[in-house]
Amino acid sequence: MSTDPSSYTVSIQYDRRLYRQDIAGSIAHARMLGKQGIITEGEALNIVEGLEQIRTEIEEGSFPWRPELEDIHMNVERRLHEVIGTETAGKLHTARSRNDQISVDMRLYLREVVGETVGKVRGLQGALLELAESNPELIIPGYTHVQRAQPVLFAHHLLAYFHMLQRDIRRFEYCHEGADALPLGSGALAGVPYPVDRQFLATELGFSKTTSNSMDAVSDRDFVVEYHSAAAMCMMHLSRLAEELVLWSSQEFGYVTLSEEYVTGSSIMPQKRNPDYAELARGKTGRVYGHLMAILTVLKGLPLAYNRDLQEDKEGLFDTVDTLLATLEVFRGMINTMQVNAESLSKAAAQGQMLATDLADYLVTRKGVPFREAHGVVARLSSYAISRNVDLMDLTLEEYQKHSPAFDEEVFSVTAESSVAARDVQGGTAPQQVSRALLEARKLLGQAGEE
Amino acid sequence: MSTDPSSYTVSIQYDRRLYRQDIAGSIAHARMLGKQGIITEGEALNIVEGLEQIRTEIEEGSFPWRPELEDIHMNVERRLHEVIGTETAGKLHTARSRNDQISVDMRLYLREVVGETVGKVRGLQGALLELAESNPELIIPGYTHVQRAQPVLFAHHLLAYFHMLQRDIRRFEYCHEGADALPLGSGALAGVPYPVDRQFLATELGFSKTTSNSMDAVSDRDFVVEYHSAAAMCMMHLSRLAEELVLWSSQEFGYVTLSEEYVTGSSIMPQKRNPDYAELARGKTGRVYGHLMAILTVLKGLPLAYNRDLQEDKEGLFDTVDTLLATLEVFRGMINTMQVNAESLSKAAAQGQMLATDLADYLVTRKGVPFREAHGVVARLSSYAISRNVDLMDLTLEEYQKHSPAFDEEVFSVTAESSVAARDVQGGTAPQQVSRALLEARKLLGQAGEE
Amino acid sequence: MSTDPSSYTVSIQYDRRLYRQDIAGSIAHARMLGKQGIITEGEALNIVEGLEQIRTEIEEGSFPWRPELEDIHMNVERRLHEVIGTETAGKLHTARSRNDQISVDMRLYLREVVGETVGKVRGLQGALLELAESNPELIIPGYTHVQRAQPVLFAHHLLAYFHMLQRDIRRFEYCHEGADALPLGSGALAGVPYPVDRQFLATELGFSKTTSNSMDAVSDRDFVVEYHSAAAMCMMHLSRLAEELVLWSSQEFGYVTLSEEYVTGSSIMPQKRNPDYAELARGKTGRVYGHLMAILTVLKGLPLAYNRDLQEDKEGLFDTVDTLLATLEVFRGMINTMQVNAESLSKAAAQGQMLATDLADYLVTRKGVPFREAHGVVARLSSYAISRNVDLMDLTLEEYQKHSPAFDEEVFSVTAESSVAARDVQGGTAPQQVSRALLEARKLLGQAGEE
Amino acid sequence: MSTDPSSYTVSIQYDRRLYRQDIAGSIAHARMLGKQGIITEGEALNIVEGLEQIRTEIEEGSFPWRPELEDIHMNVERRLHEVIGTETAGKLHTARSRNDQISVDMRLYLREVVGETVGKVRGLQGALLELAESNPELIIPGYTHVQRAQPVLFAHHLLAYFHMLQRDIRRFEYCHEGADALPLGSGALAGVPYPVDRQFLATELGFSKTTSNSMDAVSDRDFVVEYHSAAAMCMMHLSRLAEELVLWSSQEFGYVTLSEEYVTGSSIMPQKRNPDYAELARGKTGRVYGHLMAILTVLKGLPLAYNRDLQEDKEGLFDTVDTLLATLEVFRGMINTMQVNAESLSKAAAQGQMLATDLADYLVTRKGVPFREAHGVVARLSSYAISRNVDLMDLTLEEYQKHSPAFDEEVFSVTAESSVAARDVQGGTAPQQVSRALLEARKLLGQAGEE
Repeated sequence: MSTDPSSYTVSIQYDRRLYRQDIAGSIAHARMLGKQGIITEGEALNIVEGLEQIRTEIEEGSFPWRPELEDIHMNVERRLHEVIGTETAGKLHTARSRNDQISVDMRLYLREVVGETVGKVRGLQGALLELAESNPELIIPGYTHVQRAQPVLFAHHLLAYFHMLQRDIRRFEYCHEGADALPLGSGALAGVPYPVDRQFLATELGFSKTTSNSMDAVSDRDFVVEYHSAAAMCMMHLSRLAEELVLWSSQEFGYVTLSEEYVTGSSIMPQKRNPDYAELARGKTGRVYGHLMAILTVLKGLPLAYNRDLQEDKEGLFDTVDTLLATLEVFRGMINTMQVNAESLSKAAAQGQMLATDLADYLVTRKGVPFREAHGVVARLSSYAISRNVDLMDLTLEEYQKHSPAFDEEVFSVTAESSVAARDVQGGTAPQQVSRALLEARKLLGQAGEE
Repeated sequence: MSTDPSSYTVSIQYDRRLYRQDIAGSIAHARMLGKQGIITEGEALNIVEGLEQIRTEIEEGSFPWRPELEDIHMNVERRLHEVIGTETAGKLHTARSRNDQISVDMRLYLREVVGETVGKVRGLQGALLELAESNPELIIPGYTHVQRAQPVLFAHHLLAYFHMLQRDIRRFEYCHEGADALPLGSGALAGVPYPVDRQFLATELGFSKTTSNSMDAVSDRDFVVEYHSAAAMCMMHLSRLAEELVLWSSQEFGYVTLSEEYVTGSSIMPQKRNPDYAELARGKTGRVYGHLMAILTVLKGLPLAYNRDLQEDKEGLFDTVDTLLATLEVFRGMINTMQVNAESLSKAAAQGQMLATDLADYLVTRKGVPFREAHGVVARLSSYAISRNVDLMDLTLEEYQKHSPAFDEEVFSVTAESSVAARDVQGGTAPQQVSRALLEARKLLGQAGEE
Repeated sequence: MSTDPSSYTVSIQYDRRLYRQDIAGSIAHARMLGKQGIITEGEALNIVEGLEQIRTEIEEGSFPWRPELEDIHMNVERRLHEVIGTETAGKLHTARSRNDQISVDMRLYLREVVGETVGKVRGLQGALLELAESNPELIIPGYTHVQRAQPVLFAHHLLAYFHMLQRDIRRFEYCHEGADALPLGSGALAGVPYPVDRQFLATELGFSKTTSNSMDAVSDRDFVVEYHSAAAMCMMHLSRLAEELVLWSSQEFGYVTLSEEYVTGSSIMPQKRNPDYAELARGKTGRVYGHLMAILTVLKGLPLAYNRDLQEDKEGLFDTVDTLLATLEVFRGMINTMQVNAESLSKAAAQGQMLATDLADYLVTRKGVPFREAHGVVARLSSYAISRNVDLMDLTLEEYQKHSPAFDEEVFSVTAESSVAARDVQGGTAPQQVSRALLEARKLLGQAGEE
Repeated sequence: MSTDPSSYTVSIQYDRRLYRQDIAGSIAHARMLGKQGIITEGEALNIVEGLEQIRTEIEEGSFPWRPELEDIHMNVERRLHEVIGTETAGKLHTARSRNDQISVDMRLYLREVVGETVGKVRGLQGALLELAESNPELIIPGYTHVQRAQPVLFAHHLLAYFHMLQRDIRRFEYCHEGADALPLGSGALAGVPYPVDRQFLATELGFSKTTSNSMDAVSDRDFVVEYHSAAAMCMMHLSRLAEELVLWSSQEFGYVTLSEEYVTGSSIMPQKRNPDYAELARGKTGRVYGHLMAILTVLKGLPLAYNRDLQEDKEGLFDTVDTLLATLEVFRGMINTMQVNAESLSKAAAQGQMLATDLADYLVTRKGVPFREAHGVVARLSSYAISRNVDLMDLTLEEYQKHSPAFDEEVFSVTAESSVAARDVQGGTAPQQVSRALLEARKLLGQAGEE
């Protein structure tokens, strides 16, 4: 809120986070300049050593940050002048512009955070998988429209989230590809008038290719938007899990008990165990959606090539990264430590109304009743049971037969267990399908390597 | 990125900004408790003095901030225990909950920033008005579709922004009304079981009324969304002005020269004078739009009453406020210091193509040619002039008459000046209308009082 | 998906909805032109009669819509040429431009839909109020964090939504003010070169004032954004109510039964009663948020004055209006017809854990136990009861006293009823407060007049 | 705006667009049921023939659409009952649910529109490439911050957009992968209790794999969000090109003349040639961003498995698809038909200020002046030229030497041509680099196959 306009453009408070990338890019650039004879090998060495010293200073906390120098580039550059002298330091910026320099920093950063993100997603997948594996036979109510629908295995329900997260991983890896091109050599917009070796730079910095067009390269932030898009989707998935944890830990459901670390009490209601972490995670979805919308708005209608609007690409990205990583970690912890109230779940799953589909199927497949007719019979049965306030499972054979003569004793073999077992199709909830799915999930996670 | 889950819920890094509001709310609450005999007058006094001391500590920088205490409330409260002793300090939270406490803090904050925002908007209005007043007769090209359309007064163009900002002020004042209700007394959700005096609290804290329903009060963040909405609109207006400044300061337009403070050079292109401040302001529109979308997403589908998702109401709001205030200040500075290239503008405004409408009007009103026919004649004339690469104004009478015999010598009295003068309707660009509009604007700004 | 580019700019498929406004604007304009002698009174009369005939044709379905004429203006205008002859018809567009014409159409439209919107909001308020009034004493669990917190009156809970909607009304009325200024006379951008009478036009069309600046007037869409903002907020409120209805109608809560009209069955699960209307309403929140984001994006960075991007202001607005009005109507119907399961609610409300706050208050206010200590005692009591799997209310006096000697027989007077009654503060849930609040709500609704 | 609630859930007005996909899915399903003996081969044949007849009816316009049947599924199903009789028709829904049926429809639809989208993107790439190839040597001003920066080849500038679009293709192809999994067999949520052959279904419908988890499958809309994300990015790219076309076709720039088909005149300004198509395209970016935001909002916080909110996945997607395809087509037409004013561009490109970087480079590389010093010399030269109102290129050698003795005659060899030629780095603007880039682009486009 200062009235000094210059503070408006300062970014050092957040872009200092890019120091490693900025220095790595400069070291590679200096080496390339030396190799190509654009500067001498000795000068290149001096610059590299100076930059390494600066990196050490930053990591040890002795670096003299100067807000008046606005950004990470100028802070590092000015310090380099002090460390190795102005004459040599001044040569580092040969054949380079701020426009390709910030692009390489951002791409290096994004590649790294993608790796970190994928690791955290796998961490949560691991927690879900472990919980599934340790409850292989627990039957719970499956819901649609928050109405009890059909019994499913708890492990099957958890694997649904495992697979959402698997798609998230694919998307983050896709982001990595998007960022994986070296922009150095693009200069301000037109390319640089020096015999630079872009391939050498790419190799030094671990890029698998170089960008194809200098004007595009200095204004391209697609890879930033891609990370936001992938993060928004991942937070959306997590918000769904959060919603379930909030419901499941309510008194009405009573399916899980979150561990002490992940609930908070109330300042005036001593009995409360509020699922604050899950709620906050759900709320933070808004933050990540907002940052996606922000960067899309920033980029709309910008003519070629670089425009200062692009400086707005960083702060939102950093916040999205921090939010997502922390949220993934919180979920891992919540899942790892929560207690599953197997008894409540099983009891709820045994409720007869959820077997209505199976009763209809029993009429169709074993008794030859046409599908729509069977459906009608069961709907009437269901209303009948509700009107008597009894569970569908507690009806007598006579009551069944009053609704359709096709019913016989076999109807009592329709249970939550038989219902689950009947969904014996790949991707379905039958125990043998879920066992196989657990093995496949474990394999997918294993292939992913150590986290 | 810590793996300690507890850091996930910590908000002290940003909510400490609310210390004044939090303490003011607590002081009023303590006084009310004393007045009502819920605590003794002596206890009330002790608490008030303790809180005042804490405020001083914070303002003098000696306050012991403790992140492990999570938020501003706990930091202040714990310190109060140290300062006045636990027995009395513990009584401050009687008849209050975090849920109504944070609501009162946010409402007090919002009322204050609305005042500050309106002040800054007026500051920019003042700069625009001053610039308009000092260029009362300058004629410039008026554009639609970024195509030159009709000459207008520069002052008229500037007043368009003055009026956009006037609507912004109205919206911010509307936000103030939205926040202007005291929520204390709502407790956690159901009201408090103590004989509190809500009216006394409202008066102490400067609210004109109290909230009507405790469950609504603790979950209502409409006033936060309203500020975001008003700020998004205001930033949208500023982004339009930013776009114009970027265009006007380009070599192609050359209409204004931004002062040194508001342009930056290039690290490798010595001649550049980049309008970075205007661009960055345009970019920051995205940020504010994003925060609006974020809070709307947070609030979607939350059941009554308080949910922890609501904690996400603060950081985005603070950033929107900071962004908007700084941007308004930057624009005031840019407008105050920019140089208007009157000559370039006048020259552009004198271009004949922009008088096409007036030529058609001349045919219609003075020569009785039907409107559509006159329009057709001038369109052909215009194409003719373009095809010869001459300005419409440089055609001979014969050339005019070849396109319509209705033309006579009087056609040469159609000029940028006559065009502008002809729009002599309230709200139009005729000099006498604009003079009146300038006076009215000055009056509006004056009524607003000193900033 | 046509490859004829001209279809890209066609808007008649949606802007035909503006026919009444467009014709009303033209009629007023023609009358003004006649009154001012810009055209003859006879011509004005011809035009007015022609336009009235066209309006009748449209309303009777006999109007020859022509997509190749792109928009409502050209369709009406071309037809006018056919109906009254080209010479007179051609004069209607004197002293007017498409830019001020579409603005007046949109403003007239918005004023009307605001009226309709407020009526629908009141309709829903009425349904909520009626439901509250017919259940004045029903106690239900009040929630925070979807955890049972304290008992509240059902009527109090419903009134929370009444008050949210009351704020929505205020916002829509504010939108009305924003749209309430006549833009005609602004011409394309600079004002018109004819002696028009803007005040006459304003009076004819029911505007209380005229716009102040022609350049601003033709590019101002603030009033459109304001409607979107108000609608987004209202949908957010409705999404909260939707979420509650979904939860309340689940088997786990079982608090309400939605009427047949507002649930759907399942194609394969005969027992399902899915709250599809509530879910769809919750989903449609996304649509309205999206339209708000869309119009903000459209307006970002547009230079003065009119740009064709502005054509994108209509389709989203129409969809937001349709969505909001239909959703309000659906909620009114759902609330009017839903059955409240008073027994389930009361039973849930009687659960002892929710009285923990009151037990603590009892220790504090009647037994003089310091607040924090009382809070600790009750927290331990609560854990004790949970560990024994008994309700807090079912503990014996000895068990109470084991946790604090301060307890005596009076502890058994702490009930859901006593809890609710204790919140006897304005805005609180005590029966007498809620009675008064119901009266005030009824008065607010009554003042609003008949719908 | 009907008061009949049932209209609220009707989707047939937009989901009828899915008729081909819905019928294709049902045909494959019927064949599979027959093959597996779940129904007889004869029944399967009857169903398939009935469905084929229905498809023909729809395509020939004789199908009896019934809005009261709500959606495409029920319309087709009811008609099937009429066409082949209820007994057999009723069996089609065996082993299937609406939840997996709509998912397969959407996935089939998405796969198709991805193909169509990629075709349209390539069409625009082709237009850009052709324009670039036919202007291989044209030098134009390259901009950063809308300030002239350095000369570049026009072809180079156009290729920047080619490469943005290449990334868009990659993203759309990625969407295709996301949608490429067969969900049938998932039933309502738990899998179906019939011996279905999911692999057979996948093969019949051209999916390369089947979904892994039934609960995930019926609630997964990631592929819809992915299309929106990719479309938002593509529209963002197009909005940038639109902005450039608007600027370039202004009188101030005068670089291109859009063809008559892509401009519109003004109702009152006969000389106007407004770039309405480009503006409208820029505006439509908002619409697509809005739909992305909408679907993300819809999905936030939905518990497993299917919820009716998901019905909101369709209308926005259809509009995004229509908008994007039409916009791509419009751009292809605009680029194909626009006239490039080579003379204006060349003249602008020859302006000396843009050679400032090259003058500095000349001092550094040929005269050994240190970089920062050279930069300072040229900055002063540049100010000197501006202050005299002459072009940098028109200074005399004496004037050069007054600013640095290092200058000699060779300075006059620094021209737009030499500047461009000097950026001889891969991705740079030197003619030989651009030639190679054109060949590579042509190859990329060729590999893509015929459109």
